[in-house]
Amino acid sequence: MDSIDERVLQAVRIILVEPAGPLNVGSIARVMKNMGLSQLVLVQPHCDPLDPQAQQMAVHAQSVLHQAVVVQSLPEALTGCQRAIATTARERADGPPLELPEVALPWLLENPAEPPGPAALIFGPEDRGLSNGELNYAQRTVAIPSSEIYPSLNLAQAVAVCTYLLRRSWLGGPDLKPQSGSSVPADLAPLDQLEAMLSDLEQLLLTIGYLYPHTAVSRMEKFRRLLHCSGPTAQELAMLRGILRQLDWALQANRGKS
Amino acid sequence: MDSIDERVLQAVRIILVEPAGPLNVGSIARVMKNMGLSQLVLVQPHCDPLDPQAQQMAVHAQSVLHQAVVVQSLPEALTGCQRAIATTARERADGPPLELPEVALPWLLENPAEPPGPAALIFGPEDRGLSNGELNYAQRTVAIPSSEIYPSLNLAQAVAVCTYLLRRSWLGGPDLKPQSGSSVPADLAPLDQLEAMLSDLEQLLLTIGYLYPHTAVSRMEKFRRLLHCSGPTAQELAMLRGILRQLDWALQANRGKS
Repeated sequence: MDSIDERVLQAVRIILVEPAGPLNVGSIARVMKNMGLSQLVLVQPHCDPLDPQAQQMAVHAQSVLHQAVVVQSLPEALTGCQRAIATTARERADGPPLELPEVALPWLLENPAEPPGPAALIFGPEDRGLSNGELNYAQRTVAIPSSEIYPSLNLAQAVAVCTYLLRRSWLGGPDLKPQSGSSVPADLAPLDQLEAMLSDLEQLLLTIGYLYPHTAVSRMEKFRRLLHCSGPTAQELAMLRGILRQLDWALQANRGKS
Repeated sequence: MDSIDERVLQAVRIILVEPAGPLNVGSIARVMKNMGLSQLVLVQPHCDPLDPQAQQMAVHAQSVLHQAVVVQSLPEALTGCQRAIATTARERADGPPLELPEVALPWLLENPAEPPGPAALIFGPEDRGLSNGELNYAQRTVAIPSSEIYPSLNLAQAVAVCTYLLRRSWLGGPDLKPQSGSSVPADLAPLDQLEAMLSDLEQLLLTIGYLYPHTAVSRMEKFRRLLHCSGPTAQELAMLRGILRQLDWALQANRGKS
């Protein structure tokens, strides 16, 4: 992380073509700041970036709204950029080839200039997305994979996903890779059974005076964590519950004798 | 893509604890449907999932809002789940170890049951996030890496990032390679202390009649494995030995009375 200059991330400009929703623009400002970006450019916006709704959604990212640049055309928004990627919802017969965001976006950060020159990530209007003509201003085009049943993401959600992936690429490290929970047994005990066991255990520990009502909650948290770490199987959980039952009997039997 | 059953994705339940913003709940319904999810569970929501603002943000995902289940507690929301992952904004001194979402989330899809049983991804309230107690209901905890300057993501944006990563993992494809390395605590209990605890436990279980001499060895093997899997810290082991001591006292005290 130290070896990569944070300025390459800050050099990425988010361009919104004709955004119409102030809630979206505000949400976008917020997630940009969350992800370490700051340059917002609006092409012929249909709403005011300083609209109260936008400011409300931006929360602590109002600086991004105040610094937002409003321009009249996409080429103007791209001034000075060497690399641009456009976003679209789906493949079109006459459109450019689409790439996965994880594959294309890191290219925006491979910025050879010193200091890093601006690069651009372009999003279309809420209702229609970018036209083929607008897509052609960028060298590459990405599409966020989504369900065929309802493929169209909210604009601010699309920006969130892309800026997150930019930041992840910038952070590097343990990579964009899933981990198989191979060490976790397949027949893990259901969580509600685990909770039932913890509840029995709490009762027992109160009975024997190990727990007091005022310490019970925090202590039981420790047991919950320990149990989750061990990932007990249904069979193991049944064993633990068997012990609790037997302990209870042993304690009651002794009491009965007294 | 064809080889992986889409039902494992649909089996993932999104649990929102005390959500307050109808705009957020509506946006979440939309991005869930975008990403192929459908089960939304609200724990003590502070807003109506059918609030007009929620419905407006959901656009074509109003079915998710209509099918949303409202419950009174997190354990209730987790009923039937075998695997749960909680989300948090940042590391806490006394909290569970944090993982990257790319690393942990695919685990929710490794669902061995047929048909796939429910798995859960839990998000906290907008203003405070999940408490440590709530985090402990899940086996794993993820944090979305964000800027130190403004780390706190909007709830719906956080859900967008996580559900996108779930879908990407489900889709497979480039850049998603398996990864090793989980977080083993640094202060693991010494093995001899662990054995001493197991010996105390064996004695107690013989006393209460849970173990018989001829079953003791194989049973104790099960406990040894469970303990090793959980990798208890020295502090956790001390806690377990404290319980055994107290149980012993309780049993003897009762006996003394008889």
